[in-house]
Amino acid sequence: MSVMEMSHRGKDFMKIASEAEADLRELVGIPDNYKVLFLQGGASSQFAAIPMNLAPEGGVADFIVTGAWGKKALAEAGKYMETNVAATSKDSNFSTIPDVKDWKLTKGAKFVHICSNETIGGVEFKDVPDTGDVPLVADMSSNYLSKPIDVNKYGVIYGGVQKNIGPAGMAIVIVREDLIGKVNAACPTMFDYQLMADNESMYNTPPCYTMYASGLVFKKLLKMGGLEAVEKANIEKAKVLYDAIDGSDGYYVSPVTPEYRSLMNVPFTLSGGEDLEKKFLKEAGDLGLESLKGHRSVGGARASIYNAMPMEGVQALVDFMAEFKKNNA
Amino acid sequence: MSVMEMSHRGKDFMKIASEAEADLRELVGIPDNYKVLFLQGGASSQFAAIPMNLAPEGGVADFIVTGAWGKKALAEAGKYMETNVAATSKDSNFSTIPDVKDWKLTKGAKFVHICSNETIGGVEFKDVPDTGDVPLVADMSSNYLSKPIDVNKYGVIYGGVQKNIGPAGMAIVIVREDLIGKVNAACPTMFDYQLMADNESMYNTPPCYTMYASGLVFKKLLKMGGLEAVEKANIEKAKVLYDAIDGSDGYYVSPVTPEYRSLMNVPFTLSGGEDLEKKFLKEAGDLGLESLKGHRSVGGARASIYNAMPMEGVQALVDFMAEFKKNNA
Repeated sequence: MSVMEMSHRGKDFMKIASEAEADLRELVGIPDNYKVLFLQGGASSQFAAIPMNLAPEGGVADFIVTGAWGKKALAEAGKYMETNVAATSKDSNFSTIPDVKDWKLTKGAKFVHICSNETIGGVEFKDVPDTGDVPLVADMSSNYLSKPIDVNKYGVIYGGVQKNIGPAGMAIVIVREDLIGKVNAACPTMFDYQLMADNESMYNTPPCYTMYASGLVFKKLLKMGGLEAVEKANIEKAKVLYDAIDGSDGYYVSPVTPEYRSLMNVPFTLSGGEDLEKKFLKEAGDLGLESLKGHRSVGGARASIYNAMPMEGVQALVDFMAEFKKNNA
Repeated sequence: MSVMEMSHRGKDFMKIASEAEADLRELVGIPDNYKVLFLQGGASSQFAAIPMNLAPEGGVADFIVTGAWGKKALAEAGKYMETNVAATSKDSNFSTIPDVKDWKLTKGAKFVHICSNETIGGVEFKDVPDTGDVPLVADMSSNYLSKPIDVNKYGVIYGGVQKNIGPAGMAIVIVREDLIGKVNAACPTMFDYQLMADNESMYNTPPCYTMYASGLVFKKLLKMGGLEAVEKANIEKAKVLYDAIDGSDGYYVSPVTPEYRSLMNVPFTLSGGEDLEKKFLKEAGDLGLESLKGHRSVGGARASIYNAMPMEGVQALVDFMAEFKKNNA
């Protein structure tokens, strides 16, 4: 019987699910006072669930907006509570992260929300900001399990699985248990963290196959040596690519402040202009270097080098970049 | 590149998604004035989405409660609008469906909700009830695509895919377009039918692999000859099993009113009592006849014979039932 056919209440699948949670707890080092939830849908559903669980009677939440995903989380939370943009890098077209000392945090806020890696701008938090007694909530969709996570510094960590973990259609929420228990009166049952925790994420039929595939990835990362080893590999891969950009005498340009450059998403432009970029993308595609087009809001190219991208893939891109420059400089 | 790795915005996956919708439209015969939505999560999420989309300013909805799933849909809708139980088969422990002429419908109701097949009690609507101008909303999770559907008789058809269609983690909603456009102020973005329709179910990363697998099933059912052929096979399978129960001289007992017996879920008890039932389930399991335990609320055994169960599987069960009776009568 395939996992796709199993009853989620049967002992075979229950074992798959409990192993997945245990392996994730070991991999990340999740303390006992944090619940792990495997939930249907992506981070976009959690944009609503977060305020409905963390601020059942409203209040204010602070948002650090460093890109498109932070903006979406902000807009959704605004349906359920007051929101405050405590800092944003909008003025730089989201090419940096505002310094923590400049954040205008609200006293007594219910939480502070960050997006730990923005896929479009390619900016990534390198340290965990200290928000004192106010719970820090982080959308880690695009850099989940790419490096060690100090869970104790967060109130909630959440993200869709589709970048580093498993097939699209599930979010993993790691939430400190004292933060949950009540929900907004309009909260859909399926968004109720306490209920999902009480039912071990099986209030209804979960996305079994995605859970299974994610569990296999947890085992693989443990076998690789855990998140320190994963981070080391990601740093090496990103370095090769950023070095190629920075060493191109301005032929290729990274728009991102060096200290906040993402290890996952590397946007770059060609100083030769849009027509040359089009030629670059076309020739890259012909070589099997796929999905390199930058988001329309920033243009240029973007290499997404998630956990599963091998160094060979990065090397192939870098080789092509050198060759393209030689032929088109 | 596997479908699990593709960008959902890439042309390869866009083709998979648009083919899936086109094939489903052909298979079911979905009129042009109905939207088809592929949404994350199961029917339990739609229990909240339905009232938030169909009754953005509240109002009354009528529910026909014929089992556990109808009860859940009723409870969830109660968060967002007034609800009225227009009819229920609770007094018979959900072993029948109340006659339409006895339904106490509310004038001006926003919709009438039915669960077209209840998995626990094993009761199934055989005709589409006429609710006049009030939109009929049907949860078809457990008998989706098991027989032809006259879409024009419904306002909304919805259901999780995990029984007859594909891997768990997605719901398919077929909704008449004039019923959508506004939502309850507390409606999560991901539950907004109009927004999902406007974005062809790709407002965020959809459950790509489940969409792909579901698309393959649509093609398979079309090749089989469509839903008439599927229904014919389901009637034949169910007949073999119900005949075995009814022809057992009371050794096996179906608790369900014959005219509402489900073609998908066949609960039955052993008149010999609980200990004998345990022995029956144990020996069946030893032969590889899995997942036959009845739900704890009704006890006994339950054979779920969804589309993918071949006649050979039903025949193996029926053979075992005869053998068990011979050895334990």
